[in-house]
Amino acid sequence: MDGAQEPHNREAFRQALVNTLERRLFYIPSFKIYRGVAGLYDYGPPGCSVKSNVLAFWRQHFVLEENMLEVDCPCVTPEVVLKASGHVDKFTDLMVKDEKTGTCYRADHLVKDYCKDKLEKDTSLSEEKVAELRHVLAVLDDLSSEELGAKIKGYGITAPDTKNALSDPYPFNLMFQTSIGPSGVSPGYMRPETAQGIFVNFRDLYYYNGNKLPFAAAQIGQAFRNEISPRQGLLRVREFTLAEIEHFVDPDDKSHPKFADVAKLDFSMFPREDQVSGRQARRIPIGEAVSQGIVNNETLGYFIGRVYLFLTQLGIHKDRLRFRQHLANEMAHYAADCWDAEIECSYGWIECVGIADRSAYDLRAHSKLVITPVKKELGLAFKGSQKMVVEALEAMGEKEAMDLKATLEVKGEAEFHVCTLDKVVTIKKSMVSISKEKKKEHQRVFTPSVIEPSFGIGRIIYCLYEHSFYTRASKDGDEQLNVFGFPPQVAPIKCTVFPLVQNQQLEEVAKQIARSLTASGISYKIDITGTSIGKRYARTDELGVPFAITVDSTSSVTVRERDSKQQIRVNVDEVASVVKEVTDGVSTWGDVQWRYPTHSS
Amino acid sequence: MDGAQEPHNREAFRQALVNTLERRLFYIPSFKIYRGVAGLYDYGPPGCSVKSNVLAFWRQHFVLEENMLEVDCPCVTPEVVLKASGHVDKFTDLMVKDEKTGTCYRADHLVKDYCKDKLEKDTSLSEEKVAELRHVLAVLDDLSSEELGAKIKGYGITAPDTKNALSDPYPFNLMFQTSIGPSGVSPGYMRPETAQGIFVNFRDLYYYNGNKLPFAAAQIGQAFRNEISPRQGLLRVREFTLAEIEHFVDPDDKSHPKFADVAKLDFSMFPREDQVSGRQARRIPIGEAVSQGIVNNETLGYFIGRVYLFLTQLGIHKDRLRFRQHLANEMAHYAADCWDAEIECSYGWIECVGIADRSAYDLRAHSKLVITPVKKELGLAFKGSQKMVVEALEAMGEKEAMDLKATLEVKGEAEFHVCTLDKVVTIKKSMVSISKEKKKEHQRVFTPSVIEPSFGIGRIIYCLYEHSFYTRASKDGDEQLNVFGFPPQVAPIKCTVFPLVQNQQLEEVAKQIARSLTASGISYKIDITGTSIGKRYARTDELGVPFAITVDSTSSVTVRERDSKQQIRVNVDEVASVVKEVTDGVSTWGDVQWRYPTHSS
Repeated sequence: MDGAQEPHNREAFRQALVNTLERRLFYIPSFKIYRGVAGLYDYGPPGCSVKSNVLAFWRQHFVLEENMLEVDCPCVTPEVVLKASGHVDKFTDLMVKDEKTGTCYRADHLVKDYCKDKLEKDTSLSEEKVAELRHVLAVLDDLSSEELGAKIKGYGITAPDTKNALSDPYPFNLMFQTSIGPSGVSPGYMRPETAQGIFVNFRDLYYYNGNKLPFAAAQIGQAFRNEISPRQGLLRVREFTLAEIEHFVDPDDKSHPKFADVAKLDFSMFPREDQVSGRQARRIPIGEAVSQGIVNNETLGYFIGRVYLFLTQLGIHKDRLRFRQHLANEMAHYAADCWDAEIECSYGWIECVGIADRSAYDLRAHSKLVITPVKKELGLAFKGSQKMVVEALEAMGEKEAMDLKATLEVKGEAEFHVCTLDKVVTIKKSMVSISKEKKKEHQRVFTPSVIEPSFGIGRIIYCLYEHSFYTRASKDGDEQLNVFGFPPQVAPIKCTVFPLVQNQQLEEVAKQIARSLTASGISYKIDITGTSIGKRYARTDELGVPFAITVDSTSSVTVRERDSKQQIRVNVDEVASVVKEVTDGVSTWGDVQWRYPTHSS
Repeated sequence: MDGAQEPHNREAFRQALVNTLERRLFYIPSFKIYRGVAGLYDYGPPGCSVKSNVLAFWRQHFVLEENMLEVDCPCVTPEVVLKASGHVDKFTDLMVKDEKTGTCYRADHLVKDYCKDKLEKDTSLSEEKVAELRHVLAVLDDLSSEELGAKIKGYGITAPDTKNALSDPYPFNLMFQTSIGPSGVSPGYMRPETAQGIFVNFRDLYYYNGNKLPFAAAQIGQAFRNEISPRQGLLRVREFTLAEIEHFVDPDDKSHPKFADVAKLDFSMFPREDQVSGRQARRIPIGEAVSQGIVNNETLGYFIGRVYLFLTQLGIHKDRLRFRQHLANEMAHYAADCWDAEIECSYGWIECVGIADRSAYDLRAHSKLVITPVKKELGLAFKGSQKMVVEALEAMGEKEAMDLKATLEVKGEAEFHVCTLDKVVTIKKSMVSISKEKKKEHQRVFTPSVIEPSFGIGRIIYCLYEHSFYTRASKDGDEQLNVFGFPPQVAPIKCTVFPLVQNQQLEEVAKQIARSLTASGISYKIDITGTSIGKRYARTDELGVPFAITVDSTSSVTVRERDSKQQIRVNVDEVASVVKEVTDGVSTWGDVQWRYPTHSS
C-alpha cells in the first residue's frame, strides 16, 4: 500500500494518482474555466473534507492537548509589521527575465536544471566538470545575485521557451502587495506566514496566561507567496494553509515537563553531522538525541516527537518520514537549531513541517516602539498644522523612528517629511520622545525564546494522498482499481449506504439508516442507482470511504471494510452506532469483527 | 439576560461589553502595537474558540445535514473572474476627498450623518425640511453620484475633521487589488465573497453529483472589502469570514422535499408590503408565508427556516431576530426574492445572513467561453510569431472575446493587440472560433437557478456576544459581575478545574481530572492559584465557561452550572463523562441534576 519507490515508476505512479485526485475532485486547478492561474488550487468536496479532518485532528493533538492559546488574525498586514519582521527586505527570490518577451524565471531553477541536465545527459563531461556542477548544485541556495548571474552567463543559459538572452538576476519580493484604505498611501501585503500575528500579540497573550512562561500560541490560516514560477503541483503554490505554533519559553530553561512522554519514541533522524559526512538517516530515540546534544533542547525534542505522532497517526508511513536537521547555511543567523519533518513522495523528500528554535529574534523585532510627541512644543512651533505633524510622528515605522531618534540625539534637531502637509519641517529634540520597551519578569530583563513548529497543511495532505493510494485487481481480474487507504479519522466520507437492489422497501431502510448517521454526526453518501454493488464499492474505494453499508434486508445489513473487503452483519438499528465506534476510533475493525457475525457474499 | 434595549442604555451596555471582550481577548484590534489598522481585528483565544465552535455547528447543521458539497478555493482571484461576475465594474462605494488633506470619506455616510444630526438637534426645522431630510435618509442607497454630490453642495457639508471643502463623489472599488506572478501584467483581487469559487466550479460539481439537480455546494473562507472608512467595530471590517451556500435548482421546480420539516416554524417576518405601508414585523409560520406567496418558493422558505434554527440554537434571542424582505430597490435586477436575517443589537437591526434567490445570474455570468484558434491559418499568417498570437487569443477575457467575435462577424477581420509582440495584428474570421457553452439536461437547455444563503460569521458572533452578555451582583452585593451565558456548544472553554485550596493532594486530583477531560476532547482551564473560589468563578463566568469543577476532596468533586450557580456532587472518576454529556448536549443540566446529589456551599 505504498507509492512505487523505484525512480522509473515514480512518474507513472504520480500520473495515476493525480488523474484520480482530479477526476474525483480532491482538488481542482482554480478558475479552470478561465484557463486557470498557476499555483492556485481549489479543494473539491473530498479534498475539502480531508483538509477539515486534518485540521480538526491538529487542533485536538496540539491545541487541546497542550492547552495552547489559539488566535485568528487577518491576512491583510500593514507594511510596518513586515518591515520589522524582515519580510519586506528579505523575503525575495532571484529572478531573471527573457530580454525579449519579458517572461520571468527563477534564476536558481535555471541553473539547477542546467546542471542536472548536463550531469544526466552529457557523457563527455570531464571529472573536474562533474565535480564543479555537483558543487554548484550543493551551494545553489547560498549563491548571491552576482554569483548566479555569472553562472548563467558562464554556462550560456538562455530562456527555456524562446532561447532568448536573459537579464541579470534581481530580487523579486514574494509577497502579494496591496494597498489598505482608499487613500493609496498605506501599503500592505497578504501575510507570507501566520506567525507575525502571534508575535505582535505576545504581550496580551502573556498577560492572558497569567504572566507565566512557558506557554504556546497557535494559529491556522491562509498564507500567500507570489511564486515566480510555481512547479511541483500541490507542493509549491501561491496560497496555502499554514498551522503554526509559537511556544514561548525562558531562554535559560528549555526543559519540558512532558518530555518523558515522548523520550522513548524511535524514528528516523538525519543530523547535520551525518549529512555533511555523507551518512544515511538513522533511527535515534528522541530522548537520546536530546541527551547527546544532537537536538538542542527538550522542548524542541518534545515537539519533534509530537509531530512524529501527529503525522503517523494521520497515515504518513513511518519508513517514509524523517527529521532532517538544517545545515549551518540553511539556518537563519539567529536560530539555535532547526529540524524539518520531511516526507518522501514521488518528488523526493519534501519539507512538510519545520520545527525551529528561533531564539529571541521574532519578539525582539517587535519590541514595542513608543513614540510620544510633546504636543505643547509642537503646538507652539506648528500651530494649525500641529495635528498633522503629531500624526506623522506617531505613524513612523521602527527604522524611521530609530533613525530620527539617533539624529536628534546627535544634532538636537532633524528634517522630517510630513506627507499630509506635503512639506519638510524641522523637529527639535524637545518635541518628541522615542523609545523601545522591553518586557520584564521577576526583575530579570529578557526576551523569551520561541520554538516554532510550522505545518504546511497542503503538503502534508498531498503526501498523505501518495502514501494512501494503491491499486488492486478487480474481482474478474481485468481491471486495476484505485483505492485510498485513509484512516477513518481522515477519510472524507465515513461510510456509504447502498440498497442492494432498486426496491422501495430497501430504499426506505437506507434512508432510515442515513438519518441515524446524520444524527450521529457521521458523513455518508447514499447511492440508490441500480449499478452493480461491486461497481459501487469501487467508486467509493476510490474516495477512500472506509465502510460500506449494504442494505440487503429490512432487519439487518452488511458492513464492509474497505482494505480487507471483509464484511459483518449488523442489525439495522445498531449499524449507525457501530460505524460511529469504528470511525471515532473507540473500537477497531478487528474489535467489531469479534462482536458480529461475518458475512460472506 | 439580554442587552439593554432602551436607546439611552445602549451606549453604556455596549461600552461594558466591548471592555470585557477586549480585556479578556475575545478580540484584539489587529497590529495594535503598531497603532493598528482600522477595520482589522484578531480573534484572541476565547474569540477564536467561539468562532471554531460556530463554524463546526454550521458544518453540522448545513453541510452534513443536507449532504452539501463543501469546497475551499483561494482568496487570490484573477481579474477575469471578477470582471465576469460584475465586481470589477460595480463593487464600489461613492467616495469624497477632503480637498486639502486628501482624507477620504464615504459620501453617503456624510449625508446620512448630516440629516440625522439636523433631525435630532435642530428644533427650528420647518415641517417641509423635516420631511425632506427624512426622505433623503430613506432613498440614500438609491442616490447617484451626481445626486449625492448635489446634496453635499446644497447642505454645505464639509470634511468632518477639518471643515475643508470636499471633492465631488466618485466611485471607489472596494476590492483589495494585487498582481499575480512576477510580470506585473496579471491583475488580481482578494475575493470580496466566496461564492464565485463555487460558480466557476459548477460543471465539475454537477458532474460529481451524478449530473443531478438540485444540489448544494458550500464554502467557508475569508473575504475582503477595502472599506473607505470602517465604522461600528466588529460589524464593518475589511477582512471577514463568510460561510456561503449555493443551492442549485431547476428554475421550473423550486419545491423542497424537506420543506414540511420547517413549515410549522413560526417567527418574526417583515415582508416588503408591511415595510412599505409602515407596519411592524409580525410572526408568520414559514409554511403560510410560502403558500401565500410572501416568500417566493419552498426552497427559499426551507433555508429561511433552517437559518432560524441555526441562529436560535447558537444562542441568538428569538425576540431579537427577524427576517426582512428586500425592498424592490435593494434587490439586484436579476434576483427573484431576497430575505435578510437581521439581529437586533445596540447598533440597531443588523443584517447577518442574506438568503437570496439569485435566479440564473451567476451561472450565466460564467458560462464557459470557448476560444479555438485555428493554428494552421495562424501559422501561415504569422509564422514565427504564431505561438504568441495563439496565446494572446486564448488569454482573452470574455468581453474582449465577444467584442472580437462581433467584429469578425460583421467585418470579417479585426485589429488585435498582442502584448508579447507589442504590436497590433490583423485577425481574420477564419483564424479563430469563439463561442459560449451552455449546459444541457434532458435535452432541455436551461441554466439552473441558485438560492444563496450567505452568513457573515463575524457579525453573527458579535450579536451573539451582545445577546449572551449580562451582569449580576456579587455575593456581597458591592460589585456587578460580568457573565457570558453562552450555550455549552458555543462556549470557548467547556469547564474549569479548581482545587479548593492550594494542596498537593487536591492538585493531583485536579490534574487527573484534566487528563480525563483532554482524553474526552473537552477543553478546560485549570486554575491552581490560591485566589478565593468566588473570584475564580467570576473570572471564568466572564469567559462564558458553563461548568466549573471544584476539587474539595480526593473522592468526589462539585460541578457548578454558570447561570443558575447550582452545584451537584459527582465522583472523581465520573466527572469528565458528566461534563461531556452536558456539553455535547446529550443531557441537559436539569437531567444530570436529577441523577446526582445537590451540593450547597
